[in-house]
Amino acid sequence: MRLSKRKSNELRTIKIETNVIENADGSCLIKAGNTHVLCTASIEENVPPFLRKSGLGWVTSEYGMLPRSTHSRMRREAKLGKQSGRTLEIQRLIGRSLRACVDQVLLGERQIIIDCDVLQADGGTRCASITGGWIALKQAVDVLLTNQLIKKSAITCNIAAISCGIYENQPILDLDYSEDSNIETDANFVMTNHSEIVEVQASAEKKPFTKLQLDELLSLAEKGIKELVEIQNSQF
Amino acid sequence: MRLSKRKSNELRTIKIETNVIENADGSCLIKAGNTHVLCTASIEENVPPFLRKSGLGWVTSEYGMLPRSTHSRMRREAKLGKQSGRTLEIQRLIGRSLRACVDQVLLGERQIIIDCDVLQADGGTRCASITGGWIALKQAVDVLLTNQLIKKSAITCNIAAISCGIYENQPILDLDYSEDSNIETDANFVMTNHSEIVEVQASAEKKPFTKLQLDELLSLAEKGIKELVEIQNSQF
Amino acid sequence: MRLSKRKSNELRTIKIETNVIENADGSCLIKAGNTHVLCTASIEENVPPFLRKSGLGWVTSEYGMLPRSTHSRMRREAKLGKQSGRTLEIQRLIGRSLRACVDQVLLGERQIIIDCDVLQADGGTRCASITGGWIALKQAVDVLLTNQLIKKSAITCNIAAISCGIYENQPILDLDYSEDSNIETDANFVMTNHSEIVEVQASAEKKPFTKLQLDELLSLAEKGIKELVEIQNSQF
Amino acid sequence: MRLSKRKSNELRTIKIETNVIENADGSCLIKAGNTHVLCTASIEENVPPFLRKSGLGWVTSEYGMLPRSTHSRMRREAKLGKQSGRTLEIQRLIGRSLRACVDQVLLGERQIIIDCDVLQADGGTRCASITGGWIALKQAVDVLLTNQLIKKSAITCNIAAISCGIYENQPILDLDYSEDSNIETDANFVMTNHSEIVEVQASAEKKPFTKLQLDELLSLAEKGIKELVEIQNSQF
Amino acid sequence: MRLSKRKSNELRTIKIETNVIENADGSCLIKAGNTHVLCTASIEENVPPFLRKSGLGWVTSEYGMLPRSTHSRMRREAKLGKQSGRTLEIQRLIGRSLRACVDQVLLGERQIIIDCDVLQADGGTRCASITGGWIALKQAVDVLLTNQLIKKSAITCNIAAISCGIYENQPILDLDYSEDSNIETDANFVMTNHSEIVEVQASAEKKPFTKLQLDELLSLAEKGIKELVEIQNSQF
Amino acid sequence: MRLSKRKSNELRTIKIETNVIENADGSCLIKAGNTHVLCTASIEENVPPFLRKSGLGWVTSEYGMLPRSTHSRMRREAKLGKQSGRTLEIQRLIGRSLRACVDQVLLGERQIIIDCDVLQADGGTRCASITGGWIALKQAVDVLLTNQLIKKSAITCNIAAISCGIYENQPILDLDYSEDSNIETDANFVMTNHSEIVEVQASAEKKPFTKLQLDELLSLAEKGIKELVEIQNSQF
Repeated sequence: MRLSKRKSNELRTIKIETNVIENADGSCLIKAGNTHVLCTASIEENVPPFLRKSGLGWVTSEYGMLPRSTHSRMRREAKLGKQSGRTLEIQRLIGRSLRACVDQVLLGERQIIIDCDVLQADGGTRCASITGGWIALKQAVDVLLTNQLIKKSAITCNIAAISCGIYENQPILDLDYSEDSNIETDANFVMTNHSEIVEVQASAEKKPFTKLQLDELLSLAEKGIKELVEIQNSQF
Repeated sequence: MRLSKRKSNELRTIKIETNVIENADGSCLIKAGNTHVLCTASIEENVPPFLRKSGLGWVTSEYGMLPRSTHSRMRREAKLGKQSGRTLEIQRLIGRSLRACVDQVLLGERQIIIDCDVLQADGGTRCASITGGWIALKQAVDVLLTNQLIKKSAITCNIAAISCGIYENQPILDLDYSEDSNIETDANFVMTNHSEIVEVQASAEKKPFTKLQLDELLSLAEKGIKELVEIQNSQF
Repeated sequence: MRLSKRKSNELRTIKIETNVIENADGSCLIKAGNTHVLCTASIEENVPPFLRKSGLGWVTSEYGMLPRSTHSRMRREAKLGKQSGRTLEIQRLIGRSLRACVDQVLLGERQIIIDCDVLQADGGTRCASITGGWIALKQAVDVLLTNQLIKKSAITCNIAAISCGIYENQPILDLDYSEDSNIETDANFVMTNHSEIVEVQASAEKKPFTKLQLDELLSLAEKGIKELVEIQNSQF
Repeated sequence: MRLSKRKSNELRTIKIETNVIENADGSCLIKAGNTHVLCTASIEENVPPFLRKSGLGWVTSEYGMLPRSTHSRMRREAKLGKQSGRTLEIQRLIGRSLRACVDQVLLGERQIIIDCDVLQADGGTRCASITGGWIALKQAVDVLLTNQLIKKSAITCNIAAISCGIYENQPILDLDYSEDSNIETDANFVMTNHSEIVEVQASAEKKPFTKLQLDELLSLAEKGIKELVEIQNSQF
Repeated sequence: MRLSKRKSNELRTIKIETNVIENADGSCLIKAGNTHVLCTASIEENVPPFLRKSGLGWVTSEYGMLPRSTHSRMRREAKLGKQSGRTLEIQRLIGRSLRACVDQVLLGERQIIIDCDVLQADGGTRCASITGGWIALKQAVDVLLTNQLIKKSAITCNIAAISCGIYENQPILDLDYSEDSNIETDANFVMTNHSEIVEVQASAEKKPFTKLQLDELLSLAEKGIKELVEIQNSQF
Repeated sequence: MRLSKRKSNELRTIKIETNVIENADGSCLIKAGNTHVLCTASIEENVPPFLRKSGLGWVTSEYGMLPRSTHSRMRREAKLGKQSGRTLEIQRLIGRSLRACVDQVLLGERQIIIDCDVLQADGGTRCASITGGWIALKQAVDVLLTNQLIKKSAITCNIAAISCGIYENQPILDLDYSEDSNIETDANFVMTNHSEIVEVQASAEKKPFTKLQLDELLSLAEKGIKELVEIQNSQF
């Protein structure tokens, strides 16, 4: 029996509320159990220096946690004067993952910035950010289509993410914070709606794992991501 | 006729949702029209160095805006590596204002941190932060009471805040962003439920103003703050 | 009887020495009792990005305290690596106040930077900075006139500032440090030579105050600022 | 045929020179082809705050690249004033990987810091850092043993790392820079001498990959890591 | 003929005003021609970590330039967020030089901080800082003596400093800014009242110099420093 | 007898290995006893702002120490977020010294950056950096010549540097760390192959020194630098 009482392959309840921020070009509040992340998309008519005059578009992401999103209050990164290594690592992952579904030529020389801000954290914030960020991103691309700034959608597939772990030698899906704190192996998977893999990050927290266990985790993730993709698609 | 079509002494619709962040010791989402601020209170069993071993408590505040709370996306302060002068000024104001309702002796040697994070901005974010921050603060003090950590509530009065301005020589109450951008004089008032003044900040944006005009703004503010105090009290 | 032995409506002795920094385009050392502030004006033929190609001029200010301007040595902000919230708040106030007397069209697309550096602090440094900064600013505008870079003075009025406070329920004018540390309400007023208000910042330090008290403070300030304006004008 | 002309499962020539820094408690210069990393171990008789008075030891790592380790000169992080997200991500990976081979109880309440500084970069610097860092770590633990500061080696297994990738649909082992720049999928594997997995990081650079491909990459990595472990062991 | 019209071995007019900052434990405003530096001494009853519980005292220094001390306005270091290399180098020199006249045992375990802030710069600011800083330092030590915190003066000799240079192959004493900008070799000498050398920093600006030239510069400096020492002593 | 057992005028064994970093435009690893510094030269086709469109070239330098180059591990400057005063002072010295041998007109409007990174420190790292940096610089200029980007070598002379000190009243050459820690006077000399002086930095560590002693140190340095110049020239 896992700590959350869920079945080993059972996702937390996912709730998505879209268009929560009027000014943004796309936005949603995604709730995976008690993990709540506000995702917004911002279209900017400029690109990073290395893409200038290339005709190619770009997607990037920034991630943050509100100070009291966590059980004990965290110190505010803006006050500390820098983003932590964990924050930088997560926002690089989100950006890299979402770029996998974007046709840079179709997007044209502009940038979409996905901001993922955690209002409440209970494990799996990076995965919720990717899953919710994709919705905001697609909304923004739809805005470009509607405004005839692009001719064809630059979105080539769904992107969603989920965590898995090995707990008392059993693989389980979608860890909440209490589960994550007691896990032997912790893994995050990013996949498309075709069950193709975009990113795998698996890490032995307490003891090394085997190839077989990695495969089991991957199968669990595949199931979870299929469900997430359905939820994503139901928003449009 | 003012830009918002409201009457000169009419507040925006105020909606308050409390206990939105489970882990916090107090929290509310305050919506003043399209200005949405998430306020949380965190109790910490320590105080700043200048109060150590004094037996006295402390209240402080931090303020932030999510990057896409604004019409055009703002740069993230955590990434820029520092809080702007405006941010520092606002969080100093919030802390100073809320300390005016706290009995430091009754609170005991502990600290309550009020985090005010703007999810969506449409003018008046500092005033909404104070008004909502007071609710989170009172909830946290109630938690201390309930847990018998203090014997009597350390809250001595309500604190609420509202902006006023002079537009085409007419004083108006509770500016939204479009009004604020075209104002001649911009003022923020912080008051108690007894209509006593805690803080006045009035600034000539386009032309200097007179003592009479300041008095008119103050009267408008008094009316608005009375309404806000009623809304605050209806949450308990 | 107030702590400084002065009458309730009596300013400290004000001494102003002009042209103390040869290289600057305007400069004065203003002494308000033991508060000594060095104010310089620097003309730069550029403007902030938001005014480029607008034809409009700009005035801004920076403020600092020398480490041993205070009773106990303060840490040097350049070494700490950032300006404090208080510093940022004060320099924003000085800039905003001085812009109220400048015709941006007449000034033309250039910038005047007013540096206010406190050599010795005994309360009221922000007010002395505004009063002295206006002198340096006017000198710099006179330089532009003399050099025929502008056709008509861009200065539309005097700007001066003074602090007031409520001490043992009595309003008093121009607080020194010992008075400021024991005050019930602390207020700073910025006004023109026509007794119009440019900025009011009033803050309950120990207990809330009433509308009537605010009016009394304003009247005191009006008297003090009239005297300061006369001293300013005697420098030209 | 791969760009490096090597066979698909062929490592670059690995050369390891140990004890290159006299003062360090362990050190080696590891050369994997043209990638040269200087790894040192430093024993410190203190631990991070969260382990104080726990009796448990800690291993952490820092990573850096010399400015001209790369083809075009990089800007020096010490001058820029911060470590990049990539640097932080890599040093977190190295530390996490090496902790997987350390018995914290046997190590005792002290810390070993592994510094990995890239003198010349040609792809695979993080993997070379882990493989070389393990040698420096083991040397430092041997110093503790020799000096009878610990009774039994705290090293429980070898840790080594290698990159793999998919190039023109073929999995290849140990990418150099030219190969890495043209890869479809890029993966880094950290394993023990028992072919157990410590960390997997696989990322679709150009197109998503399948579970089958991930398995093929893992098999290649397993072969490479076996060879690296032999080289590690030949140093003692 | 040198640019300043002075004789090759002629100092600028030196004016020293002492006790200009009431709160400081020692202070002077030193004017060497148009170079004006405000020097203050602050006694603190603590020492840097490496001297704790040693019974030994310490002297250190901080240096800064006001933004408009220079011909064109400099950017404020507090705003830039760091002290420049030049600033750090100068304050290290001042501290090192002044420590040469202090008996650490007699001073006792306390610290004297010498702040040197340039109000107006016309060459030779670091030398004026050392010469003026010594006066503030001696005043502070005299305060300790007067207050019977030390039994015997901890000052063992005078310390003064002067610049020299080679201009059109001729050695000249005490460069002002116009001379310094056109110099072939630039040198700063710090010496005691016994003409012993504390520090030499000589630098070829346009072409290398010879041993003979270095000796000539040293002789000039010796003469200048004798005069500075007399001026220092006349202040007590 | 000096601590190192060397004769008073005896250099440490100097070993230089060139072309150690393939990508750099010039590189050497210089070993002066146990002090090991990696020097690289990078040609960049741009110059600092003050030289743009001047047709003149520039040489600059950056210096760093690896964390475990020292006996006890130093904290990494990139992690601390700034370069120390000592680092800035040394890299300014290296740049200034090497510019003394470069004809800016012949170099043309481009920049050569000399990075000096200390792998192991045992005293004299700044001098080794200058001596080794000159080799990397000359190699880079030779690359420009070979590639016909310049017509004539921009190098006008050799530049080398050595430390000297006074120990028990005796002048000694080329201090190692143990000697440097116990020295009365510490001096660094930078000279050309014609024994002309480029820079002198002499500092009384324990007691002031005399003109005669400075001359003796200079003579020692002259001898040492002649030997270093021969070693430099033997690399080409």
